[in-house]
Amino acid sequence: MPDAVELIRVKRDGGRLTDADIAWLIGAYTNGTIADEQMSALLMAIFFRGLDSAELTAWTDAMISSGERLDLSGLRRPTVDKHSTGGVGDKVSLILAPLVASCGAAVPQLSGRGLGHTGGTLDKLESIPGWRAGLSNAEILQVLADTGCVICAAGDGLAPADRRMYALRDVTGTVESIPLIASSIMSKKIAEGTAALVLDVKVGSGAFMPDINSARRLARTMVELGNAAGVRTSALLTRMDTPLGRAVGNAVEVEESVATLRGEGPADLVAVTLALAEEMLTLAGISADPAAALADGGALAAYRAMIAAQGGDPEAELAVASHREIVTAEAAGWLRSLDARAVGVAAWRLGAGRARKEDPVSATAGVLCLAKPGDEVSAGQPILELRGDDPDRFARARQALTGAIEVGAEPPEPAPPVLERISGVELAG
Amino acid sequence: MPDAVELIRVKRDGGRLTDADIAWLIGAYTNGTIADEQMSALLMAIFFRGLDSAELTAWTDAMISSGERLDLSGLRRPTVDKHSTGGVGDKVSLILAPLVASCGAAVPQLSGRGLGHTGGTLDKLESIPGWRAGLSNAEILQVLADTGCVICAAGDGLAPADRRMYALRDVTGTVESIPLIASSIMSKKIAEGTAALVLDVKVGSGAFMPDINSARRLARTMVELGNAAGVRTSALLTRMDTPLGRAVGNAVEVEESVATLRGEGPADLVAVTLALAEEMLTLAGISADPAAALADGGALAAYRAMIAAQGGDPEAELAVASHREIVTAEAAGWLRSLDARAVGVAAWRLGAGRARKEDPVSATAGVLCLAKPGDEVSAGQPILELRGDDPDRFARARQALTGAIEVGAEPPEPAPPVLERISGVELAG
Repeated sequence: MPDAVELIRVKRDGGRLTDADIAWLIGAYTNGTIADEQMSALLMAIFFRGLDSAELTAWTDAMISSGERLDLSGLRRPTVDKHSTGGVGDKVSLILAPLVASCGAAVPQLSGRGLGHTGGTLDKLESIPGWRAGLSNAEILQVLADTGCVICAAGDGLAPADRRMYALRDVTGTVESIPLIASSIMSKKIAEGTAALVLDVKVGSGAFMPDINSARRLARTMVELGNAAGVRTSALLTRMDTPLGRAVGNAVEVEESVATLRGEGPADLVAVTLALAEEMLTLAGISADPAAALADGGALAAYRAMIAAQGGDPEAELAVASHREIVTAEAAGWLRSLDARAVGVAAWRLGAGRARKEDPVSATAGVLCLAKPGDEVSAGQPILELRGDDPDRFARARQALTGAIEVGAEPPEPAPPVLERISGVELAG
Repeated sequence: MPDAVELIRVKRDGGRLTDADIAWLIGAYTNGTIADEQMSALLMAIFFRGLDSAELTAWTDAMISSGERLDLSGLRRPTVDKHSTGGVGDKVSLILAPLVASCGAAVPQLSGRGLGHTGGTLDKLESIPGWRAGLSNAEILQVLADTGCVICAAGDGLAPADRRMYALRDVTGTVESIPLIASSIMSKKIAEGTAALVLDVKVGSGAFMPDINSARRLARTMVELGNAAGVRTSALLTRMDTPLGRAVGNAVEVEESVATLRGEGPADLVAVTLALAEEMLTLAGISADPAAALADGGALAAYRAMIAAQGGDPEAELAVASHREIVTAEAAGWLRSLDARAVGVAAWRLGAGRARKEDPVSATAGVLCLAKPGDEVSAGQPILELRGDDPDRFARARQALTGAIEVGAEPPEPAPPVLERISGVELAG
């Protein structure tokens, strides 16, 4: 039998772990033979030493093997999913899943909860009365078959080793490791059973990966892992230095998503959504124009069907916050930047996000961007509208916004929202 | 209040921990606020990032503050201790403590148990009928006052944080870190209350630090720590590529120690012991000739008094192993090397050492070196005598000795046992 201390030392000293070592480590951790303190030391050693391509594949396989795999082979449509590394105002999933479904694919979007300053897709949808995030595997397959898309919580049965390890990483300072991030995301997505996957790797102040080099490394690592596991995978690097669209929060993002499905979306949000939709349809082998599906109401119909199939009322009026405050421009000029992270933290402090997994979130809290970078503004013009039900939270939210609004004499350089595309084919070539 | 995860990330990313951070970390670990999995992640980060001089001082201070300090100020003699990083056949403490005591110092030698292939001083002395390693603080002071020396177990009250952390390091692959080794050793020695300390840092195959650069770094780190804490500290780097003296085990090492105290010791053991004694006496401000004290029986008298004061019978016949096997030279020539680590592992497998803290050790098991490097030998001449009470252990002990004996046509280069001296004064200059 391998020895945990010996394997920790091998990785610590820059050596390689074999497939058998890794399978044993993850299995022994799952069954309790390896204690948390040994796994956290190994995770920190991996933070410093990394995992090579073969190690990472074995690590991800072992995570998947710790639980069940969904079988989507009974669906008549090609399956394709999208995963975002998380951004501020990132409501793309709400629009994209029904949009791609309306073009003929099946989109099994199994999601996690939001933690920190980036919101969670499930938290946003839960502002719709009656909507349920928790579905059984049979319900997931039924909703997918009936509507072509589902957005729901990933069940406890998928990659349970990852669930336990993620909680450990969170308290031991071992989250920020590219191989560990990549295997955590990809083990869940591969176990979910999708045939194809597009990764939206966000870059910028509001993203998990602030610089493009780290984002690119993470994207390449995940694309390689997905394709090695037989999931056609590609990635787009997209800009996250300012919120995506105008709404940041829960109910406010649902409303902006519905407006976008009606053809009234903000330009940056529409651009990112269509780029991801085109990528997903290409991987799914479907020739269709997602812009047309957005314009002709097909995507909106798929959205309403999906919400209704999960118990939600797509026509319901959503709750509105009882308190609002305005943040204005201090000078006239061009709005040069509106910092994504600051706005995300402000929305979080107003109640839109959670600090701990067990915290509730407020459906109504959030921030609206009344102007966007590139707009010309006058002194005193409203730039942000803060919303929430708890007036005591506004002062700390305002603190987060110190320095977040930059107005200058010149307009900013145009900033295309999609920075780069990374495909499995290019990697293989 | 500081946050454990934030402090782990600071160290992980190459930042500095403040004195307050470190005091909080060690205190919170001792009282259970910081979990083992967080401390092991921090220890692995320290393995990679190190601790600078100020961090290391704070870390060591915090370990000392977790427990009590012995007060030796009531003794009439200057106090001076020795610590060895551990070697094969290293019975120096048994000779050195009474030798230096017979020259006028008080030697409070508080020791740990042996683990792995290097034996423990307490295990060796426990082969003497009646001898007790566990003394109360009052008994320690009494034996010191009466005989000038004591060799006993460090009580649970000294640096308890180190005790818990050492156990954690042992199972998490974080033992081999110079700042962690240095603070572990020095926190216990400083808490012991000695005014001066000589470190015997072993170098070579049988040592914890196989190469001289690591050994030198460890020695310098400990010398600096000791002097910063007001303990006059220096170090000798001594050779550990072959066993020290001829006996490796427990009772056999006690017998060789007594022979040395009678003036009949092997040259290498006598040389290392006298070099350490001279260094200790210098630090204690005592002008005396330890060689004379060894020759005139003063040291032997102090030894007998110390053993008797701790319940032992210094005249008792020690147990002898029931089984013996001989390992011979395969060819004639000069014995060029006799590997310390291999002989240590063989003695360990015969029963002289323990694999886990809770294991018992055999008093009688061990290895005698019938020839030493530099001796001329004939083919078939006995080189090693293996001893033990369990005949089933001999085959695995012999396996450990494969390649350990090297005979060649030329005599080896002379190898002086003391390689280097590192003093606090030189460091300051």
